[in-house]
Amino acid sequence: MSLWSEKVLQLLRRMNSFHSPGSSLEKCLRFEVGGQQVGWVPPNVVSVLCRFPEVFSPPHGGAVALCPGLDSLERRSAAVEAVLQELRDGGAFACLKGWRNERYAVMPRYCDAPLMHMERAATSLFGVKRYGVHVSGFSRDGNGNLSMWLARRSNTKQTYPGKLDNLAAGGLAAGCTVKHTLVKECEEEACIPASVAEKATPVGTISYTYEDEDGVFPECQFVFDLELPSNFRPEIGDGEVQDFYYYPIKKVKELLASEEFKPNCAMVVLDFLIRHSVIEPDSEPYYQEFVASLHRSL
Amino acid sequence: MSLWSEKVLQLLRRMNSFHSPGSSLEKCLRFEVGGQQVGWVPPNVVSVLCRFPEVFSPPHGGAVALCPGLDSLERRSAAVEAVLQELRDGGAFACLKGWRNERYAVMPRYCDAPLMHMERAATSLFGVKRYGVHVSGFSRDGNGNLSMWLARRSNTKQTYPGKLDNLAAGGLAAGCTVKHTLVKECEEEACIPASVAEKATPVGTISYTYEDEDGVFPECQFVFDLELPSNFRPEIGDGEVQDFYYYPIKKVKELLASEEFKPNCAMVVLDFLIRHSVIEPDSEPYYQEFVASLHRSL
Repeated sequence: MSLWSEKVLQLLRRMNSFHSPGSSLEKCLRFEVGGQQVGWVPPNVVSVLCRFPEVFSPPHGGAVALCPGLDSLERRSAAVEAVLQELRDGGAFACLKGWRNERYAVMPRYCDAPLMHMERAATSLFGVKRYGVHVSGFSRDGNGNLSMWLARRSNTKQTYPGKLDNLAAGGLAAGCTVKHTLVKECEEEACIPASVAEKATPVGTISYTYEDEDGVFPECQFVFDLELPSNFRPEIGDGEVQDFYYYPIKKVKELLASEEFKPNCAMVVLDFLIRHSVIEPDSEPYYQEFVASLHRSL
Repeated sequence: MSLWSEKVLQLLRRMNSFHSPGSSLEKCLRFEVGGQQVGWVPPNVVSVLCRFPEVFSPPHGGAVALCPGLDSLERRSAAVEAVLQELRDGGAFACLKGWRNERYAVMPRYCDAPLMHMERAATSLFGVKRYGVHVSGFSRDGNGNLSMWLARRSNTKQTYPGKLDNLAAGGLAAGCTVKHTLVKECEEEACIPASVAEKATPVGTISYTYEDEDGVFPECQFVFDLELPSNFRPEIGDGEVQDFYYYPIKKVKELLASEEFKPNCAMVVLDFLIRHSVIEPDSEPYYQEFVASLHRSL
């Protein structure tokens, strides 16, 4: 096995750490809203939630549930928001310091109607699945050789400062379509006009679940390809990005093993390399492991 | 939800029936060779294997294992083959009537060295994972509109007679590369010259596990796209196919809901429709379920 393959496999394992033997999966309680599971709550969070019996029913049968009296999206969202604000003020959880005033929809599956909304910074405490969109910007030269645009995240970003990112990416806020979010992020982060961004084509999703001291992160990213004219140049927009690079695909592949990337962006690149035949099954021993690890769901 | 979406979701659920609540998963024993799991053995098979204590150790700790004295690929393959031939002669399992003299490699993961070889028709008795390759043949007209080649399987095929299939497909026999198998199947089934077939590009895998009366079927198909000139015509080769059709992609999409397809070929088409943006996340509510269901592993 090549060192590159091993490094990439390690990255994929880290991004699926919640699935690994010895993870907190067996200790977590199901988070249930309206009788349906929408997440996983780590034990240290459960004990804090028990202090709010008017919002969370006492743990029962391996689950912690919102009180049944909270019977509408609005009531649930408001009750949980009040708890989270109190916990934020009390400094209970470090992740709440990253409060963003971005509300994510909470539902059992993406196709289901939202049962409540939740502040983005709090979702890991409940293991609520988050959805986002990532755009791979690339061009081909006259011989069909691929090059890809990468962004370097600003050093002042709250998460993964200074790491490599895809051309544009963003979380799906409640009520926003995937395409709308994509066009907005392309415009804000890379000054890509809507007329160009709208040409991005959906090519699938990546899914993974990791855990860290902030909780459980089940995530699904909708993945888009955006083929750009070879004279196209993105520009720094809202300050989320400090630089853009345009690299031959071979160099992008090498960087995957370098820890330079924000990890889920590396997964988007890996998916691109597989779909565009930069990685092939007869020469990459972990080909099947790679594909499987890009699509794990709970 | 559209009827089409529901039908496709049902197909995906059937092809992942081993993962469903109520499947035999919890009753199956792990099949272990050289201390590593390589499959799942249904209870009815376990009781038959117990009649061969010189080959299979008595079930222990939720596993049935090859006797440790069988310590090489050759010894394991020969000992199991002798058992299977006896069972075949005795008419013990219907699936052994389909004996093909095709040997599949048995290993924990695709990247691992084979621990033994096993007759293709017997793999479901041990829930051993099978690998294959499927090729989607397609063309674009001057406006970029996609059309796809489909094959109709011969009415005399042992499995899924008369069903729709991809342009070419085949199982990976022990020791064969993915590309070699692809080129061979393209030539044999559709008279596609090697010079054309070699242009097929790898684009990922699909993985799923179903069970039926013949046992457990964990499968992984390496998926290739083959863009063909619009004047290209496949021809009937070795009689595995009775006809080829060239359909606009919209018609191919509709056929996915019709039960006309061999089910794993429908999954290959669904993966194609997603990668080529025929299905989009903002208009297909089950987009994320579809992608996840195309990539389930045990």
